[in-house]
Amino acid sequence: MSDLAANYAKAYGHKAGFGKRPALLLIDFVRAYFDPGCELFAGVEDVLASALRVREAARAAGIPVILTNVVYHANGIDGGRFFEKVKPLRHFLAGNPMGDWAPGLIPADDELVVSKQYPSAFFGTSLAATLTAKGVDHVILTGLTTSGCVRASCVDSISNGFITTVVRDAVGDRHPAPHEANLFDMDAKYADVVGEQEILGFLKQ
Amino acid sequence: MSDLAANYAKAYGHKAGFGKRPALLLIDFVRAYFDPGCELFAGVEDVLASALRVREAARAAGIPVILTNVVYHANGIDGGRFFEKVKPLRHFLAGNPMGDWAPGLIPADDELVVSKQYPSAFFGTSLAATLTAKGVDHVILTGLTTSGCVRASCVDSISNGFITTVVRDAVGDRHPAPHEANLFDMDAKYADVVGEQEILGFLKQ
Amino acid sequence: MSDLAANYAKAYGHKAGFGKRPALLLIDFVRAYFDPGCELFAGVEDVLASALRVREAARAAGIPVILTNVVYHANGIDGGRFFEKVKPLRHFLAGNPMGDWAPGLIPADDELVVSKQYPSAFFGTSLAATLTAKGVDHVILTGLTTSGCVRASCVDSISNGFITTVVRDAVGDRHPAPHEANLFDMDAKYADVVGEQEILGFLKQ
Amino acid sequence: MSDLAANYAKAYGHKAGFGKRPALLLIDFVRAYFDPGCELFAGVEDVLASALRVREAARAAGIPVILTNVVYHANGIDGGRFFEKVKPLRHFLAGNPMGDWAPGLIPADDELVVSKQYPSAFFGTSLAATLTAKGVDHVILTGLTTSGCVRASCVDSISNGFITTVVRDAVGDRHPAPHEANLFDMDAKYADVVGEQEILGFLKQ
Repeated sequence: MSDLAANYAKAYGHKAGFGKRPALLLIDFVRAYFDPGCELFAGVEDVLASALRVREAARAAGIPVILTNVVYHANGIDGGRFFEKVKPLRHFLAGNPMGDWAPGLIPADDELVVSKQYPSAFFGTSLAATLTAKGVDHVILTGLTTSGCVRASCVDSISNGFITTVVRDAVGDRHPAPHEANLFDMDAKYADVVGEQEILGFLKQ
Repeated sequence: MSDLAANYAKAYGHKAGFGKRPALLLIDFVRAYFDPGCELFAGVEDVLASALRVREAARAAGIPVILTNVVYHANGIDGGRFFEKVKPLRHFLAGNPMGDWAPGLIPADDELVVSKQYPSAFFGTSLAATLTAKGVDHVILTGLTTSGCVRASCVDSISNGFITTVVRDAVGDRHPAPHEANLFDMDAKYADVVGEQEILGFLKQ
Repeated sequence: MSDLAANYAKAYGHKAGFGKRPALLLIDFVRAYFDPGCELFAGVEDVLASALRVREAARAAGIPVILTNVVYHANGIDGGRFFEKVKPLRHFLAGNPMGDWAPGLIPADDELVVSKQYPSAFFGTSLAATLTAKGVDHVILTGLTTSGCVRASCVDSISNGFITTVVRDAVGDRHPAPHEANLFDMDAKYADVVGEQEILGFLKQ
Repeated sequence: MSDLAANYAKAYGHKAGFGKRPALLLIDFVRAYFDPGCELFAGVEDVLASALRVREAARAAGIPVILTNVVYHANGIDGGRFFEKVKPLRHFLAGNPMGDWAPGLIPADDELVVSKQYPSAFFGTSLAATLTAKGVDHVILTGLTTSGCVRASCVDSISNGFITTVVRDAVGDRHPAPHEANLFDMDAKYADVVGEQEILGFLKQ
């Protein structure tokens, strides 16, 4: 065990377990992260492939599947201070092809798409209300990026009252250091971080 | 002064005044309220005409203009308990023509459209963040209906930190009793209710 | 049926029914509304008596009971624009006896007290998260005042994903006109309004 | 420049600058993090000393100072899923001395204390409304811990519409690795991370 792991283990890392009525989130799997010509390119094809396998299991299990993307008005007014700070967000102005779904991802008719303007899938959206009204008690998180919208959504998921699981193989980042650092933080304090095989096993029960 | 007015005047009705950086909201001016064949028909052409005059003055004054509509996923999942309680909300499933803008209303390219699922324009949307990031301190409310989405948006507007004004002539309801009752409540506790001429005078300063 | 009732019945008034895991809210039963020397006096002893009977049944049924009050910092800064608009809110500055619980009401050790600054029990509080985490699907509302904090809490309750019931005998206002008008609006669009006997029957099942 | 820094610099790291009407936040400077007998002990005396110097400059400049702490009902019900996941949160049950202010920190009468239940100072509190109502456009963050409540508050600060600054010397964590990793993430995407001297210079202008 590393010095860091030993230090945190004194206080954190309790396992939350799984819930009875899960929902699956796919966060921001859009073209910008898959197009080598875009400065948001993250080289995360394997991450999407993992998320698609989890989604297939979720659909087979009959649990809700929800996808998020990021969309701004043409003048960026609804991006507020975040749009000012993060220049690549201009790729998500309405109609920009970088905001299209990643190659290979097409939302099904019964899957909800939540368009957001901020890192968290819950901030400025009706997602928490949707999940509460459906009786969901457990959110399974996949998507991009680990250090950005996944982390922010994870904090808001547990804060809003949902047991939260992050699927290690199905979340990704442009660089391994923030990916690992954020998995560590999330596992310590907010969510159980599990592998794809573990969540597939849970969904197939 | 009526018995009711005298009773409330003992405690409520202080005037909040106007702010320095206002924004104008047009709430849910959509076809459903203008189409005699729809059960949401409210006969509010005069209300829209008033709101359009206020909007013209707001645009001339260079203040932000924001329109809301209501849009649900085809299966209504994102309408939660509200969609279950209020059956006419089915008219706002995505793609239903009753959710189109009212005749005569076309959002300009620089006007933000906020699509919502609940009564308040602020609930489950990024509207408060947009207004705060723009330095707005004052929200001017017009729209439909006085007893529904206008009232809910009014309570959330002052709660989120904005001086709030309701334009009496530019809000409407399907029946005069809830219209008047809600204007009374809002003026007592949440907003200053003013006539069209007063807000036009303010905007033309 | 009145003209108003007939008009609204064309579109609204569907019954939402009850949930499987209810929670009871007692909103703002504080001394200000019971002290004849305070301008917020509302003469609502019967309302409190009804709410206390509902609470007894809720406790017997083992469902969560949550009370709200209103508390501001000594300089009112956390009351924002609402504190500026509504002058009697000064009675709720921290330490003011008008903010004490109403005579006869003492929160039990296992009852949660949620201190709020705005009309809605959900706004600027962690109440929705608490209810979601507990698996609550149904909020039963009692308290003061019908046209103020009860109405605002009712709109936010259904918006946050909870089936909502308002107990007619256990909510009150300083004047019967806003009381009745707000019961009408809530029953039409947000909640089922039921009598004390009906909710007691439900809780005793 | 490290491999990581070079990678992120292709897309992120734009400086947001400072605002015109700042407010200072001191997050969770409570005894638990300063008491060697508590498993939350973080050894962050220098961090508090830095924050106290920033606070002194903020008070001299007349800008609002707001402190947060964490407080739960005796049965933890209002901590929801977060209270279940993070076992040391039991130290913040109401009345526990570990929740007292850190040695040397006493809120002044004109400083607002915001008691929260979740990582973000904005989640489940009326803080955003308070800041918006005061016309604040810029939040300066200090406090504990960098990887926990500071990070969560930072994401919510920019999301709610505030230019956000994190004072490197005035935020701390129990281990340097999450401290540095979270400073990196925040600087890249949400806030400008500055040293104590830079923020003191800004406040003394």
